[in-house]
Amino acid sequence: MAILSLITDFGNQDWFAGTMKGVILGINPRATVVDITHEIAAGDIRSGAFALAASCPYFPQGTVFVAVVDPGVGSGRKPISVQTANHFFVGPDNGVLSWALAREKVKEVCALENQEFFLHPVSRTFHGRDIFAPVAAHLSRGVPLRKFGPALKDFVRLARSEPRRTGNSIQGEVVYVDRFGNAITNIDAAALGSLGSGGAGVFAGRRRLCKVAAFYQAVPAGKVVAVSGSSGLLEISVNGGNAARRLGLKIGSAVSVRTRWTEPDVR
Amino acid sequence: MAILSLITDFGNQDWFAGTMKGVILGINPRATVVDITHEIAAGDIRSGAFALAASCPYFPQGTVFVAVVDPGVGSGRKPISVQTANHFFVGPDNGVLSWALAREKVKEVCALENQEFFLHPVSRTFHGRDIFAPVAAHLSRGVPLRKFGPALKDFVRLARSEPRRTGNSIQGEVVYVDRFGNAITNIDAAALGSLGSGGAGVFAGRRRLCKVAAFYQAVPAGKVVAVSGSSGLLEISVNGGNAARRLGLKIGSAVSVRTRWTEPDVR
Amino acid sequence: MAILSLITDFGNQDWFAGTMKGVILGINPRATVVDITHEIAAGDIRSGAFALAASCPYFPQGTVFVAVVDPGVGSGRKPISVQTANHFFVGPDNGVLSWALAREKVKEVCALENQEFFLHPVSRTFHGRDIFAPVAAHLSRGVPLRKFGPALKDFVRLARSEPRRTGNSIQGEVVYVDRFGNAITNIDAAALGSLGSGGAGVFAGRRRLCKVAAFYQAVPAGKVVAVSGSSGLLEISVNGGNAARRLGLKIGSAVSVRTRWTEPDVR
Repeated sequence: MAILSLITDFGNQDWFAGTMKGVILGINPRATVVDITHEIAAGDIRSGAFALAASCPYFPQGTVFVAVVDPGVGSGRKPISVQTANHFFVGPDNGVLSWALAREKVKEVCALENQEFFLHPVSRTFHGRDIFAPVAAHLSRGVPLRKFGPALKDFVRLARSEPRRTGNSIQGEVVYVDRFGNAITNIDAAALGSLGSGGAGVFAGRRRLCKVAAFYQAVPAGKVVAVSGSSGLLEISVNGGNAARRLGLKIGSAVSVRTRWTEPDVR
Repeated sequence: MAILSLITDFGNQDWFAGTMKGVILGINPRATVVDITHEIAAGDIRSGAFALAASCPYFPQGTVFVAVVDPGVGSGRKPISVQTANHFFVGPDNGVLSWALAREKVKEVCALENQEFFLHPVSRTFHGRDIFAPVAAHLSRGVPLRKFGPALKDFVRLARSEPRRTGNSIQGEVVYVDRFGNAITNIDAAALGSLGSGGAGVFAGRRRLCKVAAFYQAVPAGKVVAVSGSSGLLEISVNGGNAARRLGLKIGSAVSVRTRWTEPDVR
Repeated sequence: MAILSLITDFGNQDWFAGTMKGVILGINPRATVVDITHEIAAGDIRSGAFALAASCPYFPQGTVFVAVVDPGVGSGRKPISVQTANHFFVGPDNGVLSWALAREKVKEVCALENQEFFLHPVSRTFHGRDIFAPVAAHLSRGVPLRKFGPALKDFVRLARSEPRRTGNSIQGEVVYVDRFGNAITNIDAAALGSLGSGGAGVFAGRRRLCKVAAFYQAVPAGKVVAVSGSSGLLEISVNGGNAARRLGLKIGSAVSVRTRWTEPDVR
């Protein structure tokens, strides 16, 4: 049993993701191909990296992840594959793999250079089809990593803004906005308990929003609520609504949590 | 062979549906996972219930349906599973399963309480991943329903507006708008024959639209047409166009069928 | 092992594509169903034909392709199946299969008339579910083509505009716009070399755009670039942007390549 999980910015409207699956099944007819998403915003390496890191811990041991958010396709950036204690990762060496890899024990990194495992002719614009899909399919059949090319010492790591702790507050920012309009922050929800008694209040910039609650419907419909999201990160939501649109939040927006707290500015 | 069919409002843009598949395949590597749709409008329990009821009769005996349109996730609403003569259903007890269940012979209803079958820690915001996916995967491996928790006498039934028959007319409403802009009504197309000779005319509110036809291209391009849709319900369409947008129809819009009929108001 | 690949305009928001999969798995539980795309624009036969032709060479021998872009569903257009040296194709005889078939060695064409292989009752609006999915599933189990109905001498061929060569220029047009906004033309990139030395320049109408480059990032971010796309066709792009929106290109827009060339009008 071999699972290959795909995460790309190819979209669902064209034939790109489907073509990758055709290539994979031609090499490994017994593969189970899982779409994580193909709707990462075009060229948005950070959102691709976040989605991969958020989903990969929930896949079985031995899954081959193929992550193709690759605005530099055809240029000098390297195609790589990484083996960790749990999984295999295949994609461009532009950081899209790095947040998932930060949570795994990396065993081997390899530059994909052995053309024997590519589809020919190799285009300059669709390495998802011509390099990443066939390599992933061969990996899923048990071809060892070192067969694909020379070992690399390291891979590109995408910078990640870390929240700052000062006194009774934690300053962070929005790192992902999901389809519900939930604004996911980089603030570890587990850290909130350390802010002291009285409950923590959440701010977007200087605006007081709300206290932290346990689930969306802990507040009335239409009200702002902050919860510990499913990735363990603090997330700003509107019960039954779209928090990002309502509060003007986007990736990079400043969010903080403080214990000095009276009444929210937003109702 | 185990089929698990997913219908959610998680969207295709994030990693939510893909993560459910990772969890399922970790528990049952032989599962065939089918996406019915993940694009139910956020929190729209009625559209989720409609889509599930429309699709489930076409799946093989023994399919496990997982329906997660769950605005109350983390609150008091119960996670349940239902076994019928044909299938298994897993989801929140908020009515999303009820229109499909209304067509099936219900054999057993169960509250999902046995934490042994959950993913831990159980989040308060993503029961699709932590409760529904793992329970469905265990069901698909043959774990009997009663192992998951105590039997329930009943489940939440979503109210359903029924069309009214008065004299030579039937009054109903739009219950679903599909991607083509077809406005699907709650009027059983099979009932139209009983309205008498002369053919039935279709009204949106007080506007006369068209006669009932056999298929979309029975009228010229751009013209309004009413047909017996693929679920056996009367459906208002525009040949080659978008009826909902063109006629301002949405869920709840009044539609009627009458036999007194001269010429349409809409051309 | 049987692969069935689906390409439709049913969208991902409703239950239509999922229902086809339920029907297929009910007939052939061992089928591997691959979504190429369900987001072809509603009724856009040409885009469906293009997407099928672009993807099908990458699928294994014996794949059954089901292409349903079918605005004439229920009318007189024939449902057909075609066997080629490599694959099987199932869909309406409206041209949607024809561009893929133009690249294959056609062995047999068949009108789908044998009701034994249909789902009953057959609706007038959803032949994807009632005719094409079940026929494809039976094909994938090895039922011979002639069992499905009488042989046909031919199938409907969709007209295809061919580029014209005059002196040192080639005049063509945009034939597809993908999710990145890349405008794919009907000009074979391999033909550009024959235009002579000095490099070829690309025009949209009378506007000079750019020279042909090897990959997207061969030009600075935000700049127009023309590349040999992954289907071997000349493609107009913006590095990191959306060329179709930026340059107002759509299907049918005139594009030409010439060797007399100085500086671009667009920067």
